Amino acid sequence: LAKPQTSAAVSPWTTELSTASAESISIRGYDLASLIGSIPFPSACFLLYTGELPDAAAARVIDAVMVASLDHGAAPPSVLAARTAISGGATLPAAAAAGLLTFGEFHGAAVEDSMRMLTSVVDDASGPTDSDLVDAADRLVAAHRADRRRIPGFGHRQHKHRDPRIERLFQIAIDAGVAGRHVAAAGAVETSLSRALDRPMPINIDGGIAAVLCELGVPSDLGNAVFIASRIAGVLAHANEERRAMRPMRPIDPRNHTYAGPAERSLSGPER
Amino acid sequence: LAKPQTSAAVSPWTTELSTASAESISIRGYDLASLIGSIPFPSACFLLYTGELPDAAAARVIDAVMVASLDHGAAPPSVLAARTAISGGATLPAAAAAGLLTFGEFHGAAVEDSMRMLTSVVDDASGPTDSDLVDAADRLVAAHRADRRRIPGFGHRQHKHRDPRIERLFQIAIDAGVAGRHVAAAGAVETSLSRALDRPMPINIDGGIAAVLCELGVPSDLGNAVFIASRIAGVLAHANEERRAMRPMRPIDPRNHTYAGPAERSLSGPER
Amino acid sequence: LAKPQTSAAVSPWTTELSTASAESISIRGYDLASLIGSIPFPSACFLLYTGELPDAAAARVIDAVMVASLDHGAAPPSVLAARTAISGGATLPAAAAAGLLTFGEFHGAAVEDSMRMLTSVVDDASGPTDSDLVDAADRLVAAHRADRRRIPGFGHRQHKHRDPRIERLFQIAIDAGVAGRHVAAAGAVETSLSRALDRPMPINIDGGIAAVLCELGVPSDLGNAVFIASRIAGVLAHANEERRAMRPMRPIDPRNHTYAGPAERSLSGPER
Amino acid sequence: LAKPQTSAAVSPWTTELSTASAESISIRGYDLASLIGSIPFPSACFLLYTGELPDAAAARVIDAVMVASLDHGAAPPSVLAARTAISGGATLPAAAAAGLLTFGEFHGAAVEDSMRMLTSVVDDASGPTDSDLVDAADRLVAAHRADRRRIPGFGHRQHKHRDPRIERLFQIAIDAGVAGRHVAAAGAVETSLSRALDRPMPINIDGGIAAVLCELGVPSDLGNAVFIASRIAGVLAHANEERRAMRPMRPIDPRNHTYAGPAERSLSGPER
Repeated sequence: LAKPQTSAAVSPWTTELSTASAESISIRGYDLASLIGSIPFPSACFLLYTGELPDAAAARVIDAVMVASLDHGAAPPSVLAARTAISGGATLPAAAAAGLLTFGEFHGAAVEDSMRMLTSVVDDASGPTDSDLVDAADRLVAAHRADRRRIPGFGHRQHKHRDPRIERLFQIAIDAGVAGRHVAAAGAVETSLSRALDRPMPINIDGGIAAVLCELGVPSDLGNAVFIASRIAGVLAHANEERRAMRPMRPIDPRNHTYAGPAERSLSGPER
Repeated sequence: LAKPQTSAAVSPWTTELSTASAESISIRGYDLASLIGSIPFPSACFLLYTGELPDAAAARVIDAVMVASLDHGAAPPSVLAARTAISGGATLPAAAAAGLLTFGEFHGAAVEDSMRMLTSVVDDASGPTDSDLVDAADRLVAAHRADRRRIPGFGHRQHKHRDPRIERLFQIAIDAGVAGRHVAAAGAVETSLSRALDRPMPINIDGGIAAVLCELGVPSDLGNAVFIASRIAGVLAHANEERRAMRPMRPIDPRNHTYAGPAERSLSGPER
Repeated sequence: LAKPQTSAAVSPWTTELSTASAESISIRGYDLASLIGSIPFPSACFLLYTGELPDAAAARVIDAVMVASLDHGAAPPSVLAARTAISGGATLPAAAAAGLLTFGEFHGAAVEDSMRMLTSVVDDASGPTDSDLVDAADRLVAAHRADRRRIPGFGHRQHKHRDPRIERLFQIAIDAGVAGRHVAAAGAVETSLSRALDRPMPINIDGGIAAVLCELGVPSDLGNAVFIASRIAGVLAHANEERRAMRPMRPIDPRNHTYAGPAERSLSGPER
Repeated sequence: LAKPQTSAAVSPWTTELSTASAESISIRGYDLASLIGSIPFPSACFLLYTGELPDAAAARVIDAVMVASLDHGAAPPSVLAARTAISGGATLPAAAAAGLLTFGEFHGAAVEDSMRMLTSVVDDASGPTDSDLVDAADRLVAAHRADRRRIPGFGHRQHKHRDPRIERLFQIAIDAGVAGRHVAAAGAVETSLSRALDRPMPINIDGGIAAVLCELGVPSDLGNAVFIASRIAGVLAHANEERRAMRPMRPIDPRNHTYAGPAERSLSGPER
């Protein structure tokens, strides 16, 4: 008979993220209880991801990034997969997992690659001016087109001319004083790519997040995590609406749906 | 040969959550661009989930709930499953999905049931005093014990005497002026249950979240969503650390790991 | 700072299923290499699941169950979720996982409950005749209708009058000499339920599998596993077709699709 | 307010795999009911995957491939993730999905890449002899080593000298008359790679499946599907044992477990 797998103990290992004992939980050295009510959730995420609390400017930007990523209506594949799963009887976490599983090369997982690309443009610029960035962007676009490779973080099947989240997100980065070479590089690539294709190819949400995360010094391998940790809330909301309001096993049209929620309103309006 | 499935169009459907057009994205009637940088991420989640923006007190509490839920070290099943998946070569979103799939009856999915239980205790109390709540809690505990059913939201395999997050979370709810009958009911059930079992059976994070979400009027079916949307950030951080720092396919000991990150520090200390 | 999680070794544990050493792999005591090419795959599954190899009759029936479960066209939620995931860029295993996550109360996970229900009808019959089974089925149907509960394993959104797989599957069970009280109970429940509802409510694939697995003595908790282990092949085939032939991120209509494969042909026809 | 997503109908689409009507289900043109009990399950999978029924030799080989892939004890990441998920309270399909999510570059998803690699060796050989294959394998190994890339389908963390499944699988392919240049190429790469590394680097199960699937003319993009559709049965068996026999939320040691099932026995022995 085959021998036992092994009776040797597995090696111990370490984590630099967090720990929990009977009495306390610690995140990167901070007592979790002391963080509750003291720092905003996006800042706590930033601490966990990067190892340090953000300063005030970075705290404002990371919060804006997460709000920008929260939801995009009922048409994204992640929403449709989550609704389909819960419609068959999946639990809420399982439905959210089905939603996550749609994130890939073509949807919601381009932040990391876009951060690497923007960094390469900044590194490749031969001087400090925006014109140097445009030259570097032209070289990048030419190289990608020669290899028939997509440039990650540009273009959206619905927002053909401009992504409504990007201008606002970049303005907040500018106001916070963190917008620098990577945000400029994103603009340079948009310009260069749109000219090369002879049609608008605007920065999309992945590219916009990528640019501001680069400015904050977030490592590129965490780029997609920031997006996913926000968008999961949108996916959960849609899955729960499906469970609450729809009949099981209905065929879910991916396009032919309309919004029937509260009418247009504004933060500054009388309705607050 | 079998006929085509059908050529009939699928019925159109509606959502009350959000919508996106070429020009804008709208969450519950608010232009998403206007929310970016204007309201905190947890408040944006609250809006998406419940349909309305939280007032200032609720905004503070929902943020505290999300920080409290963020992470709990490397031992939870969600972390181990996510690390195991990415160790085999899974992508980051797929590893996060594997983590979500561990959330069930025994781990991270008891908020909803706990909210229903607390509401039933409040409804069952025959008068307005805390003593009435204790009597109702005693009846609930007796009924669950007779049926050998767990009471959701109490007890933790590691925090045997008290969960370090709960006192802080409840204090914030008190300070914000939202702590009422449901928080009191959670305390009454803890008292009653611990007495019945003759050992401490403290409110756990699921039960604590349940109590304050009840106070905020959040529907119970959204309870687990609030927890999951926070904890996913912790799961992603662990998965990414595994990908970045560990060799593929290593056997991952579920207990024998230690924290090797920054030393103990405090928000008010000189290290900031 | 919080203490290390623990340095205590985790308890060793045992499995009764299988083991692997450097030299060999063993399934329930049989050397896996000796099984390769010697027993059919469904029989190897039966061995792994139940602990014993099937006899010739059971081997034929378990193979028939797996063929019957293989695929059901492009409309099931499992197929749509898997296609949606891979359309966003998911890997093939992640897309298959998204498909699995649609299996729940309403789709593909009713075999276990149906086995328990059929066993209760057989146990409840007061005598050995089919008429005794019909009486027991009438009591079961009345009780479920009084509680407004579904009877698992009956009805299909597409096969309103009869499921084309069931007659064939039951005939094979009869020919193999394994059809007994549970197959008869399934027929009795169909009769009773259709009469109570005054419309046909035929045994569906979950109910049909349930009946024959009961006859083979398979424990009910393995019922859904048998279905899933077969259907995953169908889900994988659809996901791969989506990846190979369709453009990424296409909206996938859940109904408006047609079959464009080989024309009708038969096993006995000249085309073989 | 943002406009409805769209009211335009989504384009109809086609599948070449299968279809279902009220009266029948058809797989690649064959009535599913006629396949039940007539062809073995692995042959039905082959039909669904490739579009044609296998001949007798291919039917035997594809069955052997699926038996060889069925299970590998309790140590693989897929088993540990599935056990971890169900231990937290996941359903059986969700636990199986968690298991699938561990399949990636390092575990269970190398068949496709290995098929492409073996085909390139066969195509690169300058003549018909085994010696030509060895020369081609030497060139491949040299190129991969220069780029520090893994060669997919070789090496196993447990089977350091030989994988006990491979010899048997290849013998069945030889007996069936289907072993040709791709099986020979696998041997040539093993020889070349082991010589280059100066230690044994045996063909693993991914590489072995890859070689025989190439011989059967299965497209390489289906390679991982064949493995996954088999191994899921093993993952399900382990998940169900965890649910049935273990306490929830136990820490699961990835190595320190032993086999406690039936003692060693053989197909030909008296115990049958």
